[in-house]
Amino acid sequence: MESNIFFKKKNIKLGKIFPKHNFKKDFIINSIKPLISANTDDITFFDSLKYKNDIQKTKAKICITSEKLEKFLPNNFHKIIVKNVLFELSRVAKLLYPDSDIDYPDLSLKIPKKVNFKNVRFGNNVLIGKNVKIGNYSIIGSNSIIESNVKIGKNCIIGSGVIIKNSIIKNNVVIQDNCKIGQKGFGFIPVNGKNIKFPHIGMVIIEDHAEISSGCTIDRGSIDITTIGKNTYLDNQVHVAHNVKIGSNCMIAGQVGFAGSSNIGNNVSIGGQAGVSGHLKIGNNVKIGGGSGVVKDIADNQIVMGYPAVSLKEFIKKNKE
Amino acid sequence: MESNIFFKKKNIKLGKIFPKHNFKKDFIINSIKPLISANTDDITFFDSLKYKNDIQKTKAKICITSEKLEKFLPNNFHKIIVKNVLFELSRVAKLLYPDSDIDYPDLSLKIPKKVNFKNVRFGNNVLIGKNVKIGNYSIIGSNSIIESNVKIGKNCIIGSGVIIKNSIIKNNVVIQDNCKIGQKGFGFIPVNGKNIKFPHIGMVIIEDHAEISSGCTIDRGSIDITTIGKNTYLDNQVHVAHNVKIGSNCMIAGQVGFAGSSNIGNNVSIGGQAGVSGHLKIGNNVKIGGGSGVVKDIADNQIVMGYPAVSLKEFIKKNKE
Amino acid sequence: MESNIFFKKKNIKLGKIFPKHNFKKDFIINSIKPLISANTDDITFFDSLKYKNDIQKTKAKICITSEKLEKFLPNNFHKIIVKNVLFELSRVAKLLYPDSDIDYPDLSLKIPKKVNFKNVRFGNNVLIGKNVKIGNYSIIGSNSIIESNVKIGKNCIIGSGVIIKNSIIKNNVVIQDNCKIGQKGFGFIPVNGKNIKFPHIGMVIIEDHAEISSGCTIDRGSIDITTIGKNTYLDNQVHVAHNVKIGSNCMIAGQVGFAGSSNIGNNVSIGGQAGVSGHLKIGNNVKIGGGSGVVKDIADNQIVMGYPAVSLKEFIKKNKE
Repeated sequence: MESNIFFKKKNIKLGKIFPKHNFKKDFIINSIKPLISANTDDITFFDSLKYKNDIQKTKAKICITSEKLEKFLPNNFHKIIVKNVLFELSRVAKLLYPDSDIDYPDLSLKIPKKVNFKNVRFGNNVLIGKNVKIGNYSIIGSNSIIESNVKIGKNCIIGSGVIIKNSIIKNNVVIQDNCKIGQKGFGFIPVNGKNIKFPHIGMVIIEDHAEISSGCTIDRGSIDITTIGKNTYLDNQVHVAHNVKIGSNCMIAGQVGFAGSSNIGNNVSIGGQAGVSGHLKIGNNVKIGGGSGVVKDIADNQIVMGYPAVSLKEFIKKNKE
Repeated sequence: MESNIFFKKKNIKLGKIFPKHNFKKDFIINSIKPLISANTDDITFFDSLKYKNDIQKTKAKICITSEKLEKFLPNNFHKIIVKNVLFELSRVAKLLYPDSDIDYPDLSLKIPKKVNFKNVRFGNNVLIGKNVKIGNYSIIGSNSIIESNVKIGKNCIIGSGVIIKNSIIKNNVVIQDNCKIGQKGFGFIPVNGKNIKFPHIGMVIIEDHAEISSGCTIDRGSIDITTIGKNTYLDNQVHVAHNVKIGSNCMIAGQVGFAGSSNIGNNVSIGGQAGVSGHLKIGNNVKIGGGSGVVKDIADNQIVMGYPAVSLKEFIKKNKE
Repeated sequence: MESNIFFKKKNIKLGKIFPKHNFKKDFIINSIKPLISANTDDITFFDSLKYKNDIQKTKAKICITSEKLEKFLPNNFHKIIVKNVLFELSRVAKLLYPDSDIDYPDLSLKIPKKVNFKNVRFGNNVLIGKNVKIGNYSIIGSNSIIESNVKIGKNCIIGSGVIIKNSIIKNNVVIQDNCKIGQKGFGFIPVNGKNIKFPHIGMVIIEDHAEISSGCTIDRGSIDITTIGKNTYLDNQVHVAHNVKIGSNCMIAGQVGFAGSSNIGNNVSIGGQAGVSGHLKIGNNVKIGGGSGVVKDIADNQIVMGYPAVSLKEFIKKNKE
C-alpha cells in the first residue's frame, strides 16, 4: 500500500530518524500515523490521555510520547520519550515529507485533455494536476483547480473557482463555487519567537452525496484525515479545521466554524455562526443553536445553545432572569 | 411575460402535475410563486400563518396547503391539501424546473466580444454566458464569471474573481473581488436519511448604488427574490441566505450572517459578526450591535445588542450585574 | 520621496483645495497623512482626543479639525475648522486621489514575462500589473492577480486565486489560496440618503515570516497603513479591516474579525470567531477566548473571554451562577 498518495516521501530508515536510539531491527519507515490507524512499520505518537483507549487497538510498535505518559504504553512498544511530543513529531514529519509544511502551489497544472476524461465535462480554464482521477458524468466549473493525485467520484458537480488538493471526493458530491478544500490547516509550534510550521501530511475525504456550499474552507488532516460524512450538507462560508470528522446526515448552517480535531456524530444540526472548539466529541442527533459556542463534549440527543453552550432548558432559564 | 429568465421551464399542464385532482380548466402552468406575487396561471403555496394577510392580495387560484391551514383559504381557491407543503412544492418545482436543484456550472461561458459590449471594459479572462446584458461604462475585473441571462446596469464596477448567476444588478453598483452572487442557497428536505434537494428557482436583485465588499455570498431566492436595497452597503465576508430582503441605506459590517427569508427595513445598521435568524422582520432605523444574535422580530427605531439580542438598555443592565 | 506609490496623485496647490483660507505660502500638497506620520507639506487631521498625544510628535502644520477640538492644537498650526472632519477629509482625498474611492479593477494586467522575473516561479494564468516587484525564489500560484506597484519579497509562497493590490509583502511570507489583500475597506459617510464613498489611499504591509491562511480579507488603510506583524499567523477566513495594526508573533484563529483602526500588540492569541471592535488598543501577550466580543481596550498580559469580553476569572464566575 502506498503510504501517502499526496506527499512525496523520503525513504529514511528508523535508525537515521532517531540516531540516539537502539532498535532491534532497522527498516525504512512507512509513514507517521495516529495510534488507531498505525501499523508496525509506522511511527505513531501518544500525547494525550484522550487517546488512551487506542493503545489496545494499535498495531504500532514505535511511539513518540512524554515522560508523563509513557507508563500507559505496554513494554512491547519502542518508546521515544521527549519533552514536547508535537515538536518531535513535527521534526520527523518534516524529515519524511519535506514539502508538507507549506502549501507550495502545484506547478504541474494543465488544461485537461478530453481523451483522459471521456465522460467528464469541463468549464473554461479548468486546471488539473498529475494523476488526477475524475469519475463519469462529473462536471467541473470554470477556473477551478484540481491539484495532483486528487480523486473525484462519479456524478459530482464542482462549481467555478474551486480549489481542491490532497482530497478524495466520493460520488454524487456537490461542491459550490469558490470552496477551498485540502489546504494546510493552522498548525505550528512557537519556539523562541519564531514558528516551526507543523507539516500536515493528512487529507480530506468527502463522502457520497455530501454538499458543500459556496466559499467553505476544509483543511486537510495533520497526521490524520478530515472527513465530511455521507449526505452531510454545509452551508456557505463554513470553516472546517484539520482532523475534524463530521458524521453523516448532518446539517451545518452558514459561517459555522470547527476548530481542529473535533468529532461530530451523525444527524447533527448546527445553526448559523456557531463555533465548536477543538478536540471535542459531539454525539449523534445533537442540535446546536445558531451563534452558540461549544466548549465541551455533548452527549447524544442533546439540544444546546448559548456561549458557552448549555442545554436549551438552561439557556431559556438564564435568559428569562 | 417570461415566467423565469434564469431557469428553463418545462411546459406542463396542471392536470399532469396533480393527476389525482379534477380541475375545471386544464392549462400550462406559468410558474410557482409566493402568494403575494402569484397570478391565476401560477401555482402558489400557503404553509405558515405569517403569510395569512397575503391571501386577500393574491391573484392566485391554485394553492398547495395543509389540512391545518386550508380553512384560511376562501373556497374559490383550488386547494391541493398535502401533509408536507414544502415537500410537495419541491416535487412540483423539480417537475417544472428540472435544473434548479443543483448549481450546474454554466458550460456556455465565453470571452466576451467587444462588438457586443461596446462601452464596457473587461479585465483578462472574463467569462460571459449567453444573453448577458451589461450597461454602458461598467467595468468587469479579471477572472470574473457572469453566467447566462444575468443583467448588469450602467456604471457598475465588478471586481476580480467575482461569480454572478441568476441575478439582476441595477445601476452604479459596486461589487468587490471574489463575491459569489446568485448561487443556490441551503435548501433541502431530509427524508429517510437522504436529502431531497429543494429547487431554488428565484433570483437576486441588487438595487442602484449598493456596494458589496470582498468575499460576500448572496444566495438567490428559493421561490422568491433575494434583494439588496438601494444605497445599501455590505462589508467583507457577509453571508445573505435565500429570500432575505434588505432595505435601502443599510450598513452591514463584516462577517454578518442572515439566515433565510428575513426582512430587513431601511436605514438599518448592523455591527460586525452579528447574526439574524430566519423568517424575522427587522424594522426601519434599527441598530444591531456587533456580535449580536437576533432571534425575534425588532420594531422600528430600536437599538439592540447581545445574544439573544435585547434592547441596549437591558444589555447594559445585564452586563453590569 | 513618493507621496503614494499606489494611487495617482493630482498636483493641487493648497490654496486651491481650501480657497476660503489665506495661507502665508501656497504650495503643492504632498499627501494626506495621520498626525503621527505627516510632514510639513502634508495635510493632516485631528478628529478625536485619542490622538491628542500625536500633536506633539507631528511635523504637520496644516490640520483639519473641529470647533470643539481646535483648542488642543498649538497656534503655529494652520487650522481648517469644519463641522465634519471626516467629510472634509473625504473631499480633499477625492480631490488629490480621484481613483481611490472605488476599487477600479486593474486593466493593465498581463501574463508575466520570464525575463522580468528571473528567479520567480509562476502557476498558470497569473496576472501581473505594471511595476510589480517580486523577490527571488518566490512562487505565485495559478489564477492569482498581483495588481500594479505591489511589492513582494523573497521566498514568498502565494497560493492560487489570490488577489493582492496596494500592498507591500516582505520576505518569507506565506499567503494561501483565495486571500484578498489590499482592497478598499468599508468607509463611507451617509449624507441625505446617499453615501459619500470615503477614499482609501492607504496600503497593507505584511511583515517577514507572516502566514495568512485561505480566504482571508485584509483591507488597506484609509489614510494610514494596515499591518500584519512579523511571524504573525492568521487562520482561514479572518477579516482585517482598514488601519488595523497587528503586532508580531500573534496567533489569530479561524473566522476572527477586526473592525477598523484597532491596535493589537505582540504575542497576542485570539480564538476562533472572536471579534475585536474598532479603535481599540489590545496590549501585548493578551489571550482572547474563541467567540469573544472585545469592546474595550485590554491591558498587557490579560486573558479575556465572553461577549462582552471580561477577564477569564469573571467569565467563569458569571457562567457558574
